[in-house]
Amino acid sequence: MERNLLFTMSYDGSAYHGWQVQENALTVQAVFQGAWQAVTGRREDLKACSRTDTGVHAREFCVSVKTESKVSPERFPAALNRHLPEDIAVKSCKEMPFDFHARYSCKGKEYCYEIWNHPVRDPFLRGRALHYWYSLEEELLDRAAKGYLGSHDFSSFCTLDRREKGDLTRTVTKAQVRRQGNMVVFTVAADGFLYNMVRIMVGTLLRVQQGKIRAEEIPEIIEAKDRRRAGPTAPACGLYLNRVFYE
Amino acid sequence: MERNLLFTMSYDGSAYHGWQVQENALTVQAVFQGAWQAVTGRREDLKACSRTDTGVHAREFCVSVKTESKVSPERFPAALNRHLPEDIAVKSCKEMPFDFHARYSCKGKEYCYEIWNHPVRDPFLRGRALHYWYSLEEELLDRAAKGYLGSHDFSSFCTLDRREKGDLTRTVTKAQVRRQGNMVVFTVAADGFLYNMVRIMVGTLLRVQQGKIRAEEIPEIIEAKDRRRAGPTAPACGLYLNRVFYE
Repeated sequence: MERNLLFTMSYDGSAYHGWQVQENALTVQAVFQGAWQAVTGRREDLKACSRTDTGVHAREFCVSVKTESKVSPERFPAALNRHLPEDIAVKSCKEMPFDFHARYSCKGKEYCYEIWNHPVRDPFLRGRALHYWYSLEEELLDRAAKGYLGSHDFSSFCTLDRREKGDLTRTVTKAQVRRQGNMVVFTVAADGFLYNMVRIMVGTLLRVQQGKIRAEEIPEIIEAKDRRRAGPTAPACGLYLNRVFYE
Repeated sequence: MERNLLFTMSYDGSAYHGWQVQENALTVQAVFQGAWQAVTGRREDLKACSRTDTGVHAREFCVSVKTESKVSPERFPAALNRHLPEDIAVKSCKEMPFDFHARYSCKGKEYCYEIWNHPVRDPFLRGRALHYWYSLEEELLDRAAKGYLGSHDFSSFCTLDRREKGDLTRTVTKAQVRRQGNMVVFTVAADGFLYNMVRIMVGTLLRVQQGKIRAEEIPEIIEAKDRRRAGPTAPACGLYLNRVFYE
């Protein structure tokens, strides 16, 4: 009998060209598909909560699969982990209603962007955080980040490509900047994200720090619906998909 | 005029065959020597606080160099970091008395051994911690670790090879096990360490957890001066040189 299973996993994206299968590039999906086949003997359609870009990490990433495999949800994570490399881990598995879909059932997501703010880099954060030399003022950045809150057309914060169709309105429910020692973290939650949206939000916050954009100016930049008004796209290495919300 | 400079650095040892230059293997010293030559144009004798093994990490590692280079101590770290890979960082530089030697002047060191204690591995700790599935009791391990304290001949906790000559007595001044969430950390400080000493101490603590050695038995194992009485050598990945003490 076919069941619909939801897997949560986490991965260090440093070595991967994101989630989605591509020709001639190593992706998390391709590796997961290989482990899936090793465990179940089947090649099945994996529904993921999102694509992630090259070098982006996931502390929580969700995949749903309809399968006739008889492996129990309790045993599935360990069975898959035996066939996955050390930079990918399946954390849990549970059975879901048949109409559940990791992407379409998703109500929202939370991302973190981590910035190591110290004159000297941290060797243990290679590929895991943006290294920013000059002092960041977290209160200033937090004040600016509040400008992202609410429902807006985020065209100014989107790299336009074939992927983005239709309405570019998204509702941001959390946007904050906090410091933990030398690490400055931007956390943002929304019902959905446009292509490169978080990284452009970060690039814009760094422009605020540099005095090139005023903290109060973010609503105007959103209003302009013009990508050129926002800051540059920050590097992928600091970005983590942190939580995925359902129901 | 020749000065004697002390550099502190940190590195992720995953990619390296330890500090010391070897033929046909990438070592931190070889990479540092390359950066040094790029900055100063010289090839000089680097005195390091210790060797570290393949895959061992350093949060603090000290190197002294006698040099006629005129680069100021304030500018040296950034100058070297520009020529070092991202998994190695020079943190500071200061001028020392001419008789200072990073190894011979060292009064002691502190190591940490980090164990990720959870049924599911953490992809972000690949090569950075030992993954231990079964539940660890940190109070039991801490009690056992106290048996390492004091001045003893640590022959039972030493892989004998050409490196170890003379007196195998070392004085352990700190030995504790603490839990921070899913991470269990063994911290040990001593005036010096024998080859593989910390890793054998950890392997022995894991035997205590497994009920194969009693927590109270460690002084007897030390007393036996017999490597076969102690536990196995734990993997290198969890080991961090944490602090180096001078004066």
